[in-house]
Amino acid sequence: MKLTILGCYAATPRTLTNPTSQLLEIKNRLFLIDCGEGTQVQLRKNKIKFSKINQVFISHLHGDHFYGLIGLISTFSLLNRNNDLHIYGPKGIREIIMLQLRLSNSWPNFGLHFHELTSNQSELVYEDEKVMVKTIPLKHRVYTNGFLFQEKIDKRKLNVEAVQKYQIEKCYYQNIKNGKDILLDDGTLVNNAELTFDPESPRSYAFCSDTAYNEAIIPIIEKADVLYHESTFLKSEENLAAKTMHCTAIEAATIADKAQVKKLILGHYSTRYDTINRFKEEAETVFPNVLLADDGISFDL
Amino acid sequence: MKLTILGCYAATPRTLTNPTSQLLEIKNRLFLIDCGEGTQVQLRKNKIKFSKINQVFISHLHGDHFYGLIGLISTFSLLNRNNDLHIYGPKGIREIIMLQLRLSNSWPNFGLHFHELTSNQSELVYEDEKVMVKTIPLKHRVYTNGFLFQEKIDKRKLNVEAVQKYQIEKCYYQNIKNGKDILLDDGTLVNNAELTFDPESPRSYAFCSDTAYNEAIIPIIEKADVLYHESTFLKSEENLAAKTMHCTAIEAATIADKAQVKKLILGHYSTRYDTINRFKEEAETVFPNVLLADDGISFDL
Repeated sequence: MKLTILGCYAATPRTLTNPTSQLLEIKNRLFLIDCGEGTQVQLRKNKIKFSKINQVFISHLHGDHFYGLIGLISTFSLLNRNNDLHIYGPKGIREIIMLQLRLSNSWPNFGLHFHELTSNQSELVYEDEKVMVKTIPLKHRVYTNGFLFQEKIDKRKLNVEAVQKYQIEKCYYQNIKNGKDILLDDGTLVNNAELTFDPESPRSYAFCSDTAYNEAIIPIIEKADVLYHESTFLKSEENLAAKTMHCTAIEAATIADKAQVKKLILGHYSTRYDTINRFKEEAETVFPNVLLADDGISFDL
Repeated sequence: MKLTILGCYAATPRTLTNPTSQLLEIKNRLFLIDCGEGTQVQLRKNKIKFSKINQVFISHLHGDHFYGLIGLISTFSLLNRNNDLHIYGPKGIREIIMLQLRLSNSWPNFGLHFHELTSNQSELVYEDEKVMVKTIPLKHRVYTNGFLFQEKIDKRKLNVEAVQKYQIEKCYYQNIKNGKDILLDDGTLVNNAELTFDPESPRSYAFCSDTAYNEAIIPIIEKADVLYHESTFLKSEENLAAKTMHCTAIEAATIADKAQVKKLILGHYSTRYDTINRFKEEAETVFPNVLLADDGISFDL
């Protein structure tokens, strides 16, 4: 699981900082999370292959989280993309994109599927053989969701030495990986546990931005391997955080602590601060394992 | 008159090139012409004062000419802009912007005025004490206008030595600048030409992008001081130019030559070319005074 931060600053794009966008690589899938203005250039700078992005998740319809989407779709179209693109986001995202495509008279030559979200309950919005994505309802000035990306439990791993010892034929390997016991020709029943190892435990990544302090998300993100939680402000601006429905670094860390996640990544920093190190310092007073997002850096998780 | 090229490449923003946007400074006014994705960052890089931009002219609703507008408006709003913003562009631009402001529940705290264009004839769309702006109807795949920016003729300049020689009182200076002759106390009539110098001749800038080769624009842009004309392709791609309703460098130069403009600036280069020097070489076979636009450069005109 690899997370590339394309942009992690609040409000407005600037010369050296970009609004929110992240690329999550999980089980060989590339999920784009939010798409602020300039995301397509950030993808190019990070040498991401455009054609591998098939799902885009948009948290909410504030500009710093989706103004880059129409440009990305247009560029996909100009590059003669073939594969379908799925967009998950608040109701309204379809109308915004379709209006602009209609007025520019430029329809993509690939399938464009909108999955508009309206629920205030966590729901499963994406599932394939290896990965599931659920919404994390957040509290912000407009309808907002975070997203929980979860690997599914892999099949069991074959214990090659054991199957050779019992001279089990290859045609049974799939059954063994699926957890079946094996009856040998001499009538012995070999327990599956003897023939396999446990699979790697599935990992999970929770993306939560933008949001006021909200303990209601704790049951959804509980024990996630990695939590990205917005921390727009430092404690000195906690009133402003409350007023604008954002969090301080300490509030983000409190959520991380209560949800017993393994790692916390901070981001969505207000551009008022000259340095982001103080976000880590403040958060670590509450939760020990804090990382700082920054534009263009990747985390191998 | 100063022209800053914020972006002058066709189609998609890339790591080192930007889609169309220009800033024209004329008679101490700042006019933004087109606003591709990333324009607000380009404005910052070029240290342009956001609050001085009060008029934005959008040529057409292809993404590389306007996807940066909603982000710019949002940023103006976040920066607590006060003065009104006027947007001139094809019908539809209002719906696109207003839909996004409505869905993000973030209304600007300044006046936002849309002047939607539908005419296929050149029309006067902006006028103040010193400057006029007219549309230049272009031929493209969607409804498109170029824009002609013209200084008005200044008042005549006072010949200070002459007015002192005749001991004319200051209260008459305004009349003299307005072209009036002066009757002295002794009954002598002093001709205005003796008391004034000619004003600087008014300058004009014609912006023409995107367009197929179109001689119909020649009467509108005739004798302009500077013509920016798109040259998306070189001669080797003239079929592609015709098909996509763009121009080659030679076609742009032919328009410049026939319209007897003083200078031609080329731009809107397709990103397929490694170097833009060949655009100048090809254009100069037809018209002598060719400049190449490039992102981040300014022309003092």
